Amino acid sequence: MRKLRVELGDRSYPIWVGTDVLASSGRILSRLGFKTAPVIVTNSRVLRLHGESLLLSLQRTFGRGSVIRIGDGERFKSQQSVEKIYEGLFRARADRQSWIVAFGGGVIGDIAGFAAATFMRGIRFVGIPTTLLAQVDSSVGGKVGINCPQGKNLIGAFHQPGAVLLDIDTLKTLPVRELACGLYEVIKCGAIRSDRLLRFLNARLDAIMKCESQAITRVIVEAVRIKADVVAQDEREAGARMVLNFGHTLGHALEAATSYSRFKHGEAVAWGMLAAAEISGLEAKQSERLRSLIRRVGRLPGLRGIPEKRVWEALLLDKKSRSGNIRMVLLQKLGRAEVRENLDPAWLREFISAFLANRGVLP
Amino acid sequence: MRKLRVELGDRSYPIWVGTDVLASSGRILSRLGFKTAPVIVTNSRVLRLHGESLLLSLQRTFGRGSVIRIGDGERFKSQQSVEKIYEGLFRARADRQSWIVAFGGGVIGDIAGFAAATFMRGIRFVGIPTTLLAQVDSSVGGKVGINCPQGKNLIGAFHQPGAVLLDIDTLKTLPVRELACGLYEVIKCGAIRSDRLLRFLNARLDAIMKCESQAITRVIVEAVRIKADVVAQDEREAGARMVLNFGHTLGHALEAATSYSRFKHGEAVAWGMLAAAEISGLEAKQSERLRSLIRRVGRLPGLRGIPEKRVWEALLLDKKSRSGNIRMVLLQKLGRAEVRENLDPAWLREFISAFLANRGVLP
Repeated sequence: MRKLRVELGDRSYPIWVGTDVLASSGRILSRLGFKTAPVIVTNSRVLRLHGESLLLSLQRTFGRGSVIRIGDGERFKSQQSVEKIYEGLFRARADRQSWIVAFGGGVIGDIAGFAAATFMRGIRFVGIPTTLLAQVDSSVGGKVGINCPQGKNLIGAFHQPGAVLLDIDTLKTLPVRELACGLYEVIKCGAIRSDRLLRFLNARLDAIMKCESQAITRVIVEAVRIKADVVAQDEREAGARMVLNFGHTLGHALEAATSYSRFKHGEAVAWGMLAAAEISGLEAKQSERLRSLIRRVGRLPGLRGIPEKRVWEALLLDKKSRSGNIRMVLLQKLGRAEVRENLDPAWLREFISAFLANRGVLP
Repeated sequence: MRKLRVELGDRSYPIWVGTDVLASSGRILSRLGFKTAPVIVTNSRVLRLHGESLLLSLQRTFGRGSVIRIGDGERFKSQQSVEKIYEGLFRARADRQSWIVAFGGGVIGDIAGFAAATFMRGIRFVGIPTTLLAQVDSSVGGKVGINCPQGKNLIGAFHQPGAVLLDIDTLKTLPVRELACGLYEVIKCGAIRSDRLLRFLNARLDAIMKCESQAITRVIVEAVRIKADVVAQDEREAGARMVLNFGHTLGHALEAATSYSRFKHGEAVAWGMLAAAEISGLEAKQSERLRSLIRRVGRLPGLRGIPEKRVWEALLLDKKSRSGNIRMVLLQKLGRAEVRENLDPAWLREFISAFLANRGVLP
């Protein structure tokens, strides 16, 4: 088991990565000062696949907690789910000393974290993400929230967990498409901060995609370390943290323009990274290395038929674009990102139009 | 105009107190770095009575903002009102740089602050409280939130404003019962931290209740300074801040036991202070000074017919009581508070029973 730490002053917290983490959760968390029986937020699928060892361990240490089940899928990242969690907390007679365990993928982490952020003005929570994407991305950094009819993640808070436990055994039941989505975010971490990570991915991709312990642990540790490092510099996304949005500007726009039905988030980000790499003007060899890695991870849904106008409008609406100023995260080279401001809208729109037209099927 | 400061590191903010503050709001806020047109959350009554000078000043400085009207009264401190604010923000095309002005009493401040805390993971807000209670109490300290069927303020956050503007002219239209409620919280500040403030209240009560500028400004400045000082020591109510709950343990229980219909919050707190002073065993002269001051401020609704059992149950449910340990803020003497832990439940219940029986009409 490896232990990392997210350095955020009095909101710092440890992240454990390895095998058998679920079965050790009671012991780990009791050492961190958790005392009462937790309220576990999860969904039926995760509970069935991985619940037993977690529940046993927590129950042995903390006594009988309660379990709140949320529906599985992005459409459950809603105010209704948050209210279901509040009700469960009240039923469990939760008070300010109570704590929540968010046990599942990114949706579970986001809504359970938001409920924790707002219940009695904030109670503690522990993230136990069970997908690679949630492990390397949303579980680090304290962004929690829900969707609303106007868009994704528009209601939320920054609320850091008390601890995060990453058990790589949970990845073995992941559909390959889900695993790929996590790897795209890992590639993103490498692209912005560590060419060494990209080279490791390239060298060991087969072992990684089979979730071989040593290889996947190293990938997770490296990605989490990069994200934790960026977050520590800029907890509330005032500046430095923006580099984590590499590939996300166009990625979000592609998701919105296809009504969140064609791409999984990671896939849209993969397309976004390919576009951003072109805009960056990377040298050909570097550009090809990135492209080939993304291609090896999995087959991206094509861009055919996506109206360029909808992509453009979604891009302008993105909550990260400040009143007209189009900013994008670009690469100086693999492993080094920069934020470029005031991109020429006419040129960018032209580029997107050509990108959509030329990349109809495969990267 | 007087300027105070709440010291909370990078969340510090200034509080302006005086006359003509509304008319100067644009100038003050523009100096503090606010730039875009604000989204103003208020209610129709406040808007009619005091809206003109505020809106004129803000509009002159920032251009035409938008106004979101919430219903008047505690029952509007709900998730529905928060969603109405979100909708207004989306209609105004708000982004992360947008800011909210909370213009009204405590209810407006709490819900508008909570909407600001959770919209796009937190945007800035400015408090412009228009009741004495909100000016001296809820506008300082960053507690924001809403009620839910299970109880008051159970959903919320800590979200510090960017600035607070207190215009004493808004107090001149307050019903006398509302003014009294604010003064009970001022008395609380004196009781826990400043006997000097209690003596000033006693000496100038007539002028204060007529809202004479100099007298009421001094009262507000002193009370805000005490609250700001306590909050600076303990932003998230981990310990020291608990002294602000003097009178609130029994106060909340009285409100709950009468279904929030008999007492205004300040009145219930006034009864709670009288009870807590007795439990504290203050010396007779001090005890009489506190009692006489509360009596002079206004006539409290009596305690007749309140079932002792409901008060007791409400007290045990209070979210501040840690699993069975009954804690109360008591006074060593006027101006010095202490938190006492593990009060004997049997004795306390006896005391409450006698207090309810003997104080049926007047303090």
